[in-house]
Amino acid sequence: MPTRAQKVNNMRNLTLLTDFYELTMMYGYYKQGKTEETATFDLFFRPFDESNFCIAAGLEQAIEYLEGLHFDGEDIEYLRSTGAFDEGFLEMLRDFRFTGSVRAMPEGTVVFPYEPLLIVTAPICQAQLVEAALLNIINHQTLIATKARRVCHAASPASVLEFGLRRAQGPDAAIYGARAAVIGGCDSTSNVLCAKLFGLMPKGTHAHSWVMSFPTEYDAFKAYADTYPNNCLLLVDTYDTLGSGVPNAIKIFDYLKGKGYKPLGIRLDSGDLAYLSKQARKMLDEAGHSDCKIFASSDIDEYVLQSLKEQGACIDIYGVGTRLITSNNTPSLGGVYKLADIEREGVHIPKMKISDNPVKMTNPGVKTVYRLYDKQTRKAIADVIALQGETIDESKAYTLTHPVERWKTKTVTDFCAVELYEEVMRDGKRTQPAKDIYDLQQECLGSLYDFWPEYKRLDHPHEYKVDLSDKLYELKQRLIEEERQTVKK
Amino acid sequence: MPTRAQKVNNMRNLTLLTDFYELTMMYGYYKQGKTEETATFDLFFRPFDESNFCIAAGLEQAIEYLEGLHFDGEDIEYLRSTGAFDEGFLEMLRDFRFTGSVRAMPEGTVVFPYEPLLIVTAPICQAQLVEAALLNIINHQTLIATKARRVCHAASPASVLEFGLRRAQGPDAAIYGARAAVIGGCDSTSNVLCAKLFGLMPKGTHAHSWVMSFPTEYDAFKAYADTYPNNCLLLVDTYDTLGSGVPNAIKIFDYLKGKGYKPLGIRLDSGDLAYLSKQARKMLDEAGHSDCKIFASSDIDEYVLQSLKEQGACIDIYGVGTRLITSNNTPSLGGVYKLADIEREGVHIPKMKISDNPVKMTNPGVKTVYRLYDKQTRKAIADVIALQGETIDESKAYTLTHPVERWKTKTVTDFCAVELYEEVMRDGKRTQPAKDIYDLQQECLGSLYDFWPEYKRLDHPHEYKVDLSDKLYELKQRLIEEERQTVKK
Repeated sequence: MPTRAQKVNNMRNLTLLTDFYELTMMYGYYKQGKTEETATFDLFFRPFDESNFCIAAGLEQAIEYLEGLHFDGEDIEYLRSTGAFDEGFLEMLRDFRFTGSVRAMPEGTVVFPYEPLLIVTAPICQAQLVEAALLNIINHQTLIATKARRVCHAASPASVLEFGLRRAQGPDAAIYGARAAVIGGCDSTSNVLCAKLFGLMPKGTHAHSWVMSFPTEYDAFKAYADTYPNNCLLLVDTYDTLGSGVPNAIKIFDYLKGKGYKPLGIRLDSGDLAYLSKQARKMLDEAGHSDCKIFASSDIDEYVLQSLKEQGACIDIYGVGTRLITSNNTPSLGGVYKLADIEREGVHIPKMKISDNPVKMTNPGVKTVYRLYDKQTRKAIADVIALQGETIDESKAYTLTHPVERWKTKTVTDFCAVELYEEVMRDGKRTQPAKDIYDLQQECLGSLYDFWPEYKRLDHPHEYKVDLSDKLYELKQRLIEEERQTVKK
Repeated sequence: MPTRAQKVNNMRNLTLLTDFYELTMMYGYYKQGKTEETATFDLFFRPFDESNFCIAAGLEQAIEYLEGLHFDGEDIEYLRSTGAFDEGFLEMLRDFRFTGSVRAMPEGTVVFPYEPLLIVTAPICQAQLVEAALLNIINHQTLIATKARRVCHAASPASVLEFGLRRAQGPDAAIYGARAAVIGGCDSTSNVLCAKLFGLMPKGTHAHSWVMSFPTEYDAFKAYADTYPNNCLLLVDTYDTLGSGVPNAIKIFDYLKGKGYKPLGIRLDSGDLAYLSKQARKMLDEAGHSDCKIFASSDIDEYVLQSLKEQGACIDIYGVGTRLITSNNTPSLGGVYKLADIEREGVHIPKMKISDNPVKMTNPGVKTVYRLYDKQTRKAIADVIALQGETIDESKAYTLTHPVERWKTKTVTDFCAVELYEEVMRDGKRTQPAKDIYDLQQECLGSLYDFWPEYKRLDHPHEYKVDLSDKLYELKQRLIEEERQTVKK
């Protein structure tokens, strides 16, 4: 139901969701008569501690944001009150709309450091204004989709539900974090608003407070079973998991079966999940409830999951909360938005950031990324960041060269090269409708399937090659030399 | 401008921002005829890795959320589509409003583990529904206000600006995170929407992209100075901070001074901030610009600030982004919302969660918290969690007893006892208008001032006493014994 999501998003005007310096720079461009220049910015991240690759996410909300951009009367009045802008500029803002184009990797795509997730080409004032909000949206959802991929990888074949609403960093972190978690592999979420916005079936049963609000645990379970006889999942750890919770649940399941219902299972939310799940499994099986599932939650992340798997825990479905929705170990993706090109009267001037630190250098020019696949195995071999318009001739051998350590080369044959971008906005309008969230999840699964397991393991994955085309490499070297000269002046 | 903030928040209906189990429990209470019961829930956190105390924040948004609660037609239609509820229940939701009362610690208050930040008393269905959203809002803002307190403590006497929009976990995390950061001590934010909503002056200058969009750094600085001659702050690290950035800035400052303007200063955004700031300070001073300030940003948190201080860095104002807005080291506050009391036909039944783990035990009953101050020093001595209605006789000596290790006691005299709560909602309506954000910041400074520095240092602070009143302690012991009997049945 993407139209609903759009509606909700559009109820808030996020145009002022920007850093003040974007506005002062816009004003500067305006005062300097530079508003006619067209800029191209790349949104990309640098090597990320948590994972060797990310799962692209947040594009849909980025497009909605760009489509909705407008300064309303109250915004202009507020900007006037800051005293930083003249009336001509404020007047110009009244008609301000985003009229640019955006090329992007589809949500769910496996993306590596330095590969632009989003390429924005627009009049410089527009392209500048949107920096902070685009980074906010894409950094957040890509971070969570990436974490979800790791958690689901570790849980597999058990499935994962997103349960993090109460610990998320505000309502949007919960709503859009849960969306990203589903793109990254989670089955669904407990978050009802997210489920409504994106057409999911929300998941959940009852809390400890339900049990505590009845005189006994048995009474509470009985009342829940009578309310949801078809869908009865009981939380068994309020008092004593194996001493009272599981035995009471078994009594209730017997009662439900007697009435012709099929109980769903139990949920563990504390204690030693490995031990408790194995004991509970045994108790359920011995009582004839081997079709009852065991759900578990409690400070779970990919490392806890690996450990539970090693210990032979009997858990069918995991509820993962805090550590997924906040990307606990690394709670931010350091995506940046860097100027790559300026077009002035039809002439392109490629731009790059020079730095003593090669990690902080950017790639100049309007670019694209090719993913090279081995035709036999159909697995990805390497990515090549190239200038837009460059083609890779599949009929010839292609030599990959390390972007910095140029003596490292590898020649490939019998491959195909696939460009990773879609044009998602043209002249300020979206070019395609919003995609269904489960289609995006499939996109993610498909993109992951393209890679050998060695690249996907959680610890010390094999390094995937992301190279620069020779043309891009040469342009970069030329600009480094030129800018060095400029600085000397 | 709190009315604007309210307007924006109310544009989104957050009623479905809840975990699905809150709704299935509501439905259960409805089916079990328990809707007439009145429940009291405490929202509190357990010991928190990052800090021995927190700064309460988020109350204003919690009140707005409770005031705005209603299921609109689309929400009810969506809930019907889940198949989990009958028509009578869905019909009941049409008139659903929050009619309860809320007592809370004012935003900015220093709060310790186990002390309720919020005490919600309402018909059980209402009190249950709001659990997840209240936790989401309060956990988030309290987390960030607490982090901001630490950062500002370490930066002092330098001031701190919040710069984290682009790395925050979604729009709300940026907007309300910046709000919480100001409550916790930041001067202002770069986030224009937050500034507009809460009546702040947003801060910012220009980015590297501004410099890169001009032929030379000097041209870029000149253009910026011409645009903002009164407010000229130049980012000097695009190419070579000491080799070109600072010298170019000095040329521009000379130019501005020549025209009668007072330049603001320079900003460092990369490199060795200690070294660069000392060198830049020297260069500025030697050029006669000793009134120019040095701003710095670049992956700063309280530990980096401590180190910069030790190294004698010459920095006047810090821009703190990612690590503040995400509370990088501990990106969630584990606040919980626990049933404390049920009132059934005028009879109160105190409730508590029993657990093998004493850390997870809750405190039963409708409670309050007193903060005891030494009358001579006016500093806080200890907090006492008591039952509501209990008074502490200031004319007599009072013996504090450790909540678990009962042999640890301390007797105090010549003190006064101040209750920490305000009633912020009664019968579903707010009892006071929203407060100005700088008043909340003052509230925070005042609350911090009540504590000796030993409690406020960042590493290994002295443990502050939070005790239970004898009455509350006895109630707790009685319930533990009773519930043990119940489980045995």
